[in-house]
Amino acid sequence: MKKLLILVVAALLAISASAQTLSSPDGNLVMTFALTQKGTPTYTLSYKGQEVIRPSALGFEFVDNAYENYGTYYHTPKRPIYSMREGFTLQETASATFDEVWKPVWGENAEIRNHYNELLVKLCRKERNFMLNIRFRLYNDGLGFRYEFPWQANKKLSYFVIREEYTEFAMTGDHTAYWIPGCYETQEYEYAVSRMSEIDDRIVEVGKNVGNAMQKIFSPTGVQTSLQLKTDDGLYINIHEAALVDYSCMHLELNPDTNVFTSHLTPDALGYKGWMQAPCHTPWRTIEVSDDACKILASNLILNLNDPCAYEDTSWIKPIKYIGIWWELMLGKSRWYYTAEFKKKGVKLGENDYTKVTPLPNHGANNANVRRYIDFAAKHGFDQVLVEGWNEGWEDYYGCRKDYVFDFQTPYPDFDIKALNEYAHSKGVRLMMHHETSSSVRNYERHMERAYSMMNDYGYNAVKSGYVGGIIPNGEYHSGQYMVNHYLYAVKEAAKHRIMVNAHEAIRPTGLCRTYPNLIGNESARGMEYCTNEDAGIKPHHAATLPFTRLKGGPMDYTPGILNMKFAGQTPRKDKARRCVRSTICNQLALYVTLFSPLQMAADLPENYENQPAAFQFIKDVAVDWDESRYLAAEPAEYIVAARRTKGKNEWFVGGITDNERTMPISFDFLEKGKNYIATLYKDGKDADCDNNPHAYTVVSGRIDSRSALKIWMAHGGGFAISIREATTADSKVKPLK
Amino acid sequence: MKKLLILVVAALLAISASAQTLSSPDGNLVMTFALTQKGTPTYTLSYKGQEVIRPSALGFEFVDNAYENYGTYYHTPKRPIYSMREGFTLQETASATFDEVWKPVWGENAEIRNHYNELLVKLCRKERNFMLNIRFRLYNDGLGFRYEFPWQANKKLSYFVIREEYTEFAMTGDHTAYWIPGCYETQEYEYAVSRMSEIDDRIVEVGKNVGNAMQKIFSPTGVQTSLQLKTDDGLYINIHEAALVDYSCMHLELNPDTNVFTSHLTPDALGYKGWMQAPCHTPWRTIEVSDDACKILASNLILNLNDPCAYEDTSWIKPIKYIGIWWELMLGKSRWYYTAEFKKKGVKLGENDYTKVTPLPNHGANNANVRRYIDFAAKHGFDQVLVEGWNEGWEDYYGCRKDYVFDFQTPYPDFDIKALNEYAHSKGVRLMMHHETSSSVRNYERHMERAYSMMNDYGYNAVKSGYVGGIIPNGEYHSGQYMVNHYLYAVKEAAKHRIMVNAHEAIRPTGLCRTYPNLIGNESARGMEYCTNEDAGIKPHHAATLPFTRLKGGPMDYTPGILNMKFAGQTPRKDKARRCVRSTICNQLALYVTLFSPLQMAADLPENYENQPAAFQFIKDVAVDWDESRYLAAEPAEYIVAARRTKGKNEWFVGGITDNERTMPISFDFLEKGKNYIATLYKDGKDADCDNNPHAYTVVSGRIDSRSALKIWMAHGGGFAISIREATTADSKVKPLK
Repeated sequence: MKKLLILVVAALLAISASAQTLSSPDGNLVMTFALTQKGTPTYTLSYKGQEVIRPSALGFEFVDNAYENYGTYYHTPKRPIYSMREGFTLQETASATFDEVWKPVWGENAEIRNHYNELLVKLCRKERNFMLNIRFRLYNDGLGFRYEFPWQANKKLSYFVIREEYTEFAMTGDHTAYWIPGCYETQEYEYAVSRMSEIDDRIVEVGKNVGNAMQKIFSPTGVQTSLQLKTDDGLYINIHEAALVDYSCMHLELNPDTNVFTSHLTPDALGYKGWMQAPCHTPWRTIEVSDDACKILASNLILNLNDPCAYEDTSWIKPIKYIGIWWELMLGKSRWYYTAEFKKKGVKLGENDYTKVTPLPNHGANNANVRRYIDFAAKHGFDQVLVEGWNEGWEDYYGCRKDYVFDFQTPYPDFDIKALNEYAHSKGVRLMMHHETSSSVRNYERHMERAYSMMNDYGYNAVKSGYVGGIIPNGEYHSGQYMVNHYLYAVKEAAKHRIMVNAHEAIRPTGLCRTYPNLIGNESARGMEYCTNEDAGIKPHHAATLPFTRLKGGPMDYTPGILNMKFAGQTPRKDKARRCVRSTICNQLALYVTLFSPLQMAADLPENYENQPAAFQFIKDVAVDWDESRYLAAEPAEYIVAARRTKGKNEWFVGGITDNERTMPISFDFLEKGKNYIATLYKDGKDADCDNNPHAYTVVSGRIDSRSALKIWMAHGGGFAISIREATTADSKVKPLK
Repeated sequence: MKKLLILVVAALLAISASAQTLSSPDGNLVMTFALTQKGTPTYTLSYKGQEVIRPSALGFEFVDNAYENYGTYYHTPKRPIYSMREGFTLQETASATFDEVWKPVWGENAEIRNHYNELLVKLCRKERNFMLNIRFRLYNDGLGFRYEFPWQANKKLSYFVIREEYTEFAMTGDHTAYWIPGCYETQEYEYAVSRMSEIDDRIVEVGKNVGNAMQKIFSPTGVQTSLQLKTDDGLYINIHEAALVDYSCMHLELNPDTNVFTSHLTPDALGYKGWMQAPCHTPWRTIEVSDDACKILASNLILNLNDPCAYEDTSWIKPIKYIGIWWELMLGKSRWYYTAEFKKKGVKLGENDYTKVTPLPNHGANNANVRRYIDFAAKHGFDQVLVEGWNEGWEDYYGCRKDYVFDFQTPYPDFDIKALNEYAHSKGVRLMMHHETSSSVRNYERHMERAYSMMNDYGYNAVKSGYVGGIIPNGEYHSGQYMVNHYLYAVKEAAKHRIMVNAHEAIRPTGLCRTYPNLIGNESARGMEYCTNEDAGIKPHHAATLPFTRLKGGPMDYTPGILNMKFAGQTPRKDKARRCVRSTICNQLALYVTLFSPLQMAADLPENYENQPAAFQFIKDVAVDWDESRYLAAEPAEYIVAARRTKGKNEWFVGGITDNERTMPISFDFLEKGKNYIATLYKDGKDADCDNNPHAYTVVSGRIDSRSALKIWMAHGGGFAISIREATTADSKVKPLK
């Protein structure tokens, strides 16, 4: 890894004045730290002289961890509460500058610059002799800061319990917010766009639309991060966190009277929010700021605030483009479960003889169907085939609160795991493992080692895991410290087996893929699957919001590539007859570029791809790992245009999506000057419309160079996609693209 | 296994009359089942015509498990409550008789007869079409019954959540009770003896005396099982449960106005008490009855109600007599932890270099000390040496709520695990593994496979595990379903490695050692360790209560054999200066016979044994596994005299203990008629007294036969022990024992 490292640490100085100022390397961002008269730590942030964050308090409440006694009926001690929100004095400060270039294992760019100025503030709260450090890192693209807890002279405070973190983000006005409800259980809401002051009014409507059984919305003004905001002056502000490790997920709660967001952590079963041992620290709290929406998308702040890769050898980590037995399950054409008999009388793993029951006619993960997908993958160059519903237990896996729900090792009788893997490998394809845990987390951890070992035995190198339903152990939430710890445990254990993880329904990412790049994907947001649910659905603005929000922390397995948008009638289930994808074909193609992920699915049915060979060609061609990425145009919830250069090739892909009809000017000045390129443009057909005419598109090819410019019309819910390769002598007669 | 099996199943009959009667094989016990006018199931029990259990209701409350949504701030659905306490109608009954003889892998007797009459009652609650079966088994020594839940036509009720079980035990009067407080966390209370009506008055005093940080007493009239009772007419009644598997521990709550005990299950973090999937059943609820206290002790009801051994090969399960580096830790002579440096600044496993810190001068588990114990064990014929404090992490293992508290694999620098095991094996001794979990249960399960494998690698075949402190995951209790599931998981996983388990602070046993005989021991009650705590202590009646209560479910690792009762001054800690064992030497010896366990420790320090070679001889001689056991005299909380014949030998050991001074007549009619035996009697010295003169004892030998009789005086807190072997020709001149 090439490194350019300049580290300057100023001498530690005991100072009396408490106000500290820090500037970003380019000087555009300036933050201050100060203690109030009462000794409350505060910070502010400005951008090009304009106030972004008004004075915002920092602090905690702890509860006493000294005595474990939950009490008896005659003696129920309340844990004493320690306020750590005021009474601090400044002990020392230290500043530093850091600048390096690092190379991710996979990513949007081959190299990432990590350049910041740092301020470390050491505080002491005399009353309990409590020491608290706050570390600020100011980048050109934003601010990161975290709380650090050194070992305490008062040992009792070295093992502390967080009752709440009170980190404020005081806004300067009633900005436009791109938000989903703050929820302990799921992030699978459709993004809402409203004034901050309107969150309260709209949260019930937005919350009800989750179409997901598990939810726990904690407040009428609670929202999740990453939270995108836009001021009336056109400033874009994004609040998230980086490196969420062994700590509860941070949500934000708005005080609509003051425009202040305050952190709200996910509680555990006892209502506490963090069990800590010093020395330790919180995740980074991040604020990206720019007057250019494209720069928000291009920011690497979150990745930079994560630790470097933890693995010495990463040769086994490879981007994946895959298909799978999945969309047909979502459509109801086939089933995860094997037999209606156990559907009617339940499953007890190990006690059911699946060989003696009548299989469904349409169990999806059957040998013939899997071979069909393998053949299709091999023919069209896909790396892997995901197979869901391969293992015993699906008959009552959901909603029954079963502890021993799956063993992750026993295939259904019609899934010959050995033969199918051998067949796939003979064709240069791998199967992708699927571990649905039903959120019975103890059960998953009990079987994890054996399940991963079995994957090694058969030649799987990637697993899609799932966490549907309520967590077991009872009382824990998907976004609490206990589960945050689990998700990373699963990733680290997988790495021991050289296995990549794509976890669905897990905590939304916070850049941990830098440190653990086998975390190749996550769901953690509302993805394409919601289009199969007519009560829920996805509106066109949603995919144009995700790169500003969910994708801040890492790639998403959104599963794009649906080319047949209207699947009414394909399903025998009447209640889903009106299901559809509100997206044009070109919008679907563009998603492979606008939604960066090193793991991309071509989600539609093989037969639908065979019916649309022209559009399918783009999905086959598009890369999933990049040397360079440029955001050409962007506005949250409206449009995004991105251009990316394929890893190791002088080949570009451009994608544009939009909510409403619009014409987008595209300049190709990102191309190497003086070189000729051949571009293939997939654009919405004349009358295309995501609702009325989603399948209309045209494909045109032509010559372009760095001086070329186009104006491309995009339909309502539409988009465009372009593949660009260097021209060869054989292309001398190709005409310019228009 | 020799079997005598007679099974007669009566034809299933749909009947209209609801009252059913069942008698024990000897006719002494008679039970009735009936439905009340409101359709509430009830039962009664009588013994020799005397009422034992007045009409007592049976039933449940469930909560709806259909929808997993915990709700949002705007929508918090309450789970509907389904009362299953009335409205039942009788569908069918079936009766059967069973008689077999089975052989335990280890135990008090080589053969156990399992002989009962059975009544199966099939009920239906029309309102929700809920089917409930109750199975009664009536033995000569008591009643066992359990609820059975068949798969439900109403599938929703096949996955059900128990809000509470309402099983009544209606007493006929205000009996004397031998009880400890009902507590979700611990059983380590000293037994109290009082009228049932006095429980309320005394529970605070008894509860405060636990000397254990974790406790959760749930009610002023709650008590634990096994609960021993005695009527004013001299009838002994014992209430417990058998085969507690994947269900919450049952406590009892007394209504002092009606003398009715009602079941009270341990809740989970959400307050619910059982997550069930039909077909399934509860543990057996057991009521032993006799007018002879000795018959209560001799009852095999609990074992008989458990399933036969689950393992095909049990050759690797062997009784164990062991010593260990433990009592010196309890006394404060040495320490579990290695260094004061990490004691002061905490441990983060894997991040501490123990080789670079100053060790304590008195870390117990050091190579030299372990070798000293190995030498002592080899010299005196002990099977194993327990070593506690061998692994990294003890510096802050307790009271800090650490998740990653131990890895169970990394020895301290002064414990050479390979060399010490090799040294032990070269001398015919094994080390015993120690896994303190600190109740961080997820962490233990994560490391369990590797920890057990490491035991295999080094030749360990037994582990003492521990569960001090509050459970992680938070909100779960030691006696809840989640933990009950865990303890058995640990035992079953251990069996895969041919490892025996001796779990401390785990759920009190319920006879599972029949099915899983590698569950070689448990603590689960107040053991000898409390004598090192002056604030707690153990009074002389306690050990005479345990066989009537705690030992009902299985053996206890009480750790007897303390021969130096007054250890004031041995400890540098002033606050423990008055610690002592309130027991004479002969009382300590007798405990090896009165407290059956296939795992027995000689708990005292090697030097104390070397100072008392005569008494130590009994500890060396006494067996731990038996072909035959006889209880010669017993009264709960007062005295117990037991005689046992060594497995495979015509050799007997007799032990007697008492609370207060008394003289006990002993008849040796259990010896084979016509044979001569040599007996060695260890008896309290003339002025012996557990408080004032605990060390006084004499040893006398002499000839006895089956016609011999003795009157043996026992001191306050005293006892006696006798070892008996067949006489040989060399013994012809030995005089009769007097």
